[in-house]
Amino acid sequence: MAGPLRPSTSAVRGALYLVPATLDFGVADSSPLVDVLPARTLQVAAQLSHWICENAKSTRAFLKRVHELYPLAVTLQEQDIVELPHAVHKKGDHSGNFDARSLLHQALQGHNIGLISEAGMPAVADPGSSVVHAAHTLGLTVVPLVGPVSLLLALAASGLNGQNFAFVGYLPQDPAQRSQRIRELETLALKTGQTQIFIETPYRNAAMLESLLQSLKPTTRLAISSGLTLPDAHVRSDSVSTWRQHPTRLDKHLPAVFAIGA
Amino acid sequence: MAGPLRPSTSAVRGALYLVPATLDFGVADSSPLVDVLPARTLQVAAQLSHWICENAKSTRAFLKRVHELYPLAVTLQEQDIVELPHAVHKKGDHSGNFDARSLLHQALQGHNIGLISEAGMPAVADPGSSVVHAAHTLGLTVVPLVGPVSLLLALAASGLNGQNFAFVGYLPQDPAQRSQRIRELETLALKTGQTQIFIETPYRNAAMLESLLQSLKPTTRLAISSGLTLPDAHVRSDSVSTWRQHPTRLDKHLPAVFAIGA
Repeated sequence: MAGPLRPSTSAVRGALYLVPATLDFGVADSSPLVDVLPARTLQVAAQLSHWICENAKSTRAFLKRVHELYPLAVTLQEQDIVELPHAVHKKGDHSGNFDARSLLHQALQGHNIGLISEAGMPAVADPGSSVVHAAHTLGLTVVPLVGPVSLLLALAASGLNGQNFAFVGYLPQDPAQRSQRIRELETLALKTGQTQIFIETPYRNAAMLESLLQSLKPTTRLAISSGLTLPDAHVRSDSVSTWRQHPTRLDKHLPAVFAIGA
Repeated sequence: MAGPLRPSTSAVRGALYLVPATLDFGVADSSPLVDVLPARTLQVAAQLSHWICENAKSTRAFLKRVHELYPLAVTLQEQDIVELPHAVHKKGDHSGNFDARSLLHQALQGHNIGLISEAGMPAVADPGSSVVHAAHTLGLTVVPLVGPVSLLLALAASGLNGQNFAFVGYLPQDPAQRSQRIRELETLALKTGQTQIFIETPYRNAAMLESLLQSLKPTTRLAISSGLTLPDAHVRSDSVSTWRQHPTRLDKHLPAVFAIGA
């Protein structure tokens, strides 16, 4: 029996599961999976045998941790793990230029496929949207599973407006351009009430904080969360003037989420 | 020993836990808690005895379900459950006019407090940010716990840009104003690449879809998710022209999340 040549809603198709990962990637003290992943997410992960990921090595490490709680249906050695091309990592996955349909051919043979990123929810602040897009094009069922999303945890913990907010990714690295962008985001936040959320590579956390304290108005609120869901989680939300009076030193190894608002 | 009169970081203070709820509120077939809540979230919820919520009745119903998995430290009858004033429900909690510090006085006596909303993450697309803000003012530790967030699950499942997105809440109810707002959001999405996410009261789902299909350009992508994490979950992501050719009827009882992008 040959597989269908064109998309249909045939029952033999596999589904695409979006599998969230823990937020402890690269952090020494890994926290238990059950702290952040519901039983169903772990059970589905243990049943899957086909994966699309950013990094096969960390996907195997994740599956090894899952196996300690829910035995894998297929051994680690026999898992079919495909990495996304480097070109679509980080900043390139929403341009619409990458056709990910070929990565999903196993779904057309009836295999369920897991999409996983290095931390948190795939396709949110991380690559993966091209794969989800391709799944819809092929008529596959897409099932997002529950797990930690650092920027949403940070937003909830910030005390800033969570009924109107934007996540804008990374800001420019050049100090002058970064300052200008910070002021643009502040204007938007103060004018529309829309909380503006962004991230930075951990080793630039201190430079980002310095830029923020120099560029923002004293009355603007600034919230910074780092290490959420980990033992050394930290959340601080204060006016810029209070931040200036009592500075905090940010850990240069822990991913942080920054948010500004009225 | 009298308690401190002004905020300090005294070790006897309680913390504010942000406790996510399931997404099945008001839906007949409730799904198991373990599908969407990690063990730690359930364990913390079972230990808490003081709550701030939107609705005490549904908070008790939630705690009853938690108790079946993790026995409550304090009986349902003895739980201290305080409702947020109606004025801060839904559209009013980010104006900064409500001082929620009085709701947190038990934390100053050393009690941990749980903040919970009717569905999903408190303070995200729901009231609660005034309470989190007050907790920061009082110097309390704020701990966001992991659980389902419908709009983030919907974004991940949409295949739209998840590296730059905005959640804008509800659109105007008046058809002409709604159309105008849809076109504004479309212009923003196409110009900046920022996915625009919004929600609607379920009984207006059909009217919203009609407005979207009339107002958007044929090549714009429209994703609609409903009932995520529930047995009748549905995700569709297509170009507007495809939506027009093959319309979907939206359930008027299930909360839906709408997203538009390039």
